[in-house]
Amino acid sequence: MDGSDVILLNLWVSVFGARVRIALAEKGINYEYREEDINNKSPLLLQMNPVHKTIPVLIHNAKPICESSIIVQYIDEAWHDKAPQLLPSDPYIRAQARFWADFIDKKIWLTEGKDQEMAKEEFMDVLKVLEGQLGEPYLVGESFGFADIALIPFSVWFYTLNKIGNMNIEKECPKLAAWVNRCMERESVSKTLSDPHQFYDLVLEHNRKGY
Amino acid sequence: MDGSDVILLNLWVSVFGARVRIALAEKGINYEYREEDINNKSPLLLQMNPVHKTIPVLIHNAKPICESSIIVQYIDEAWHDKAPQLLPSDPYIRAQARFWADFIDKKIWLTEGKDQEMAKEEFMDVLKVLEGQLGEPYLVGESFGFADIALIPFSVWFYTLNKIGNMNIEKECPKLAAWVNRCMERESVSKTLSDPHQFYDLVLEHNRKGY
Repeated sequence: MDGSDVILLNLWVSVFGARVRIALAEKGINYEYREEDINNKSPLLLQMNPVHKTIPVLIHNAKPICESSIIVQYIDEAWHDKAPQLLPSDPYIRAQARFWADFIDKKIWLTEGKDQEMAKEEFMDVLKVLEGQLGEPYLVGESFGFADIALIPFSVWFYTLNKIGNMNIEKECPKLAAWVNRCMERESVSKTLSDPHQFYDLVLEHNRKGY
Repeated sequence: MDGSDVILLNLWVSVFGARVRIALAEKGINYEYREEDINNKSPLLLQMNPVHKTIPVLIHNAKPICESSIIVQYIDEAWHDKAPQLLPSDPYIRAQARFWADFIDKKIWLTEGKDQEMAKEEFMDVLKVLEGQLGEPYLVGESFGFADIALIPFSVWFYTLNKIGNMNIEKECPKLAAWVNRCMERESVSKTLSDPHQFYDLVLEHNRKGY
């Protein structure tokens, strides 16, 4: 597989883009990375994702795939001969993995745009549901996969939430904290996720500018 | 397959439940249907879907699968030896089918709870995007499948939207209207979807009671 036929349009700070980068790294797929400018989206992005106009977009053989969870499934299926398998092979376990990935999409993301206190409480409630669900060693089943990939990028936010939101995620959700550490032992994750301090600085700057 | 090991918890009026019923009908799977009471959810529902507490829930061999799109994929995968295949076999076309099903979930449903005029406009905008996407004969590819199953239950609303919202969906979206008729030729669809007039009566009663 030559890298030139796989292009990723992304923003480095995106939790959704991080999912795709982790999936590509897990499979060992070479690709061309193109950073988008959120204030000046490229013609290629608008052409490849005319419906949502959002990153990440994976372009494979000149054809676009959009929406992070759909891209991760596509990567698993288009390169099914490359280990590891990201979705479990058993249909029931696969449905479980999809359920938790969907839960993360529906619940974590929807805290956005809400009153800060409410968002904080809801975010913690979501983490506690996940804490209760967490198996050993991974979110669903024995292997690192689809559900873990959906959740782990959000761990970059934890430091900022603890500092700004006066939360203590590690204390309230010890199993989740241990799971984060376990995921970070994987190169696909540790090399992809940005430094939580860098995210914190970005949020401080964002707040200072009063966006 | 004996019906007793497949149970569907549902509400007859649910567009999401209709997706699951269409998928089960397409595959010819026998099942036990249990109508839930929205004001008095059964202990079984609360036990089987403790996270969302919503229908539809498919119970297969005593294990629950939740969320309509996940259930439809599960049905396709757990009974993969039964025709027809609901998701396309090509990974790229499959990603397209998932993209449109996801678009329907994100866009149509989120018009709920908004100001009526705004919801109406947004709903029509969504239908027009789908009108532009509609292939021949189906939403994605040559066969009736996942994306069609995601969308067709909403067609029951069209009559009510035309009457109450002073819309003319058939005129504004002629390809979509033709696609609805094409889908209704399938027994799995025509026998599952409730009468649009019955839905209209329900909405009138709902409005009269001032819910």
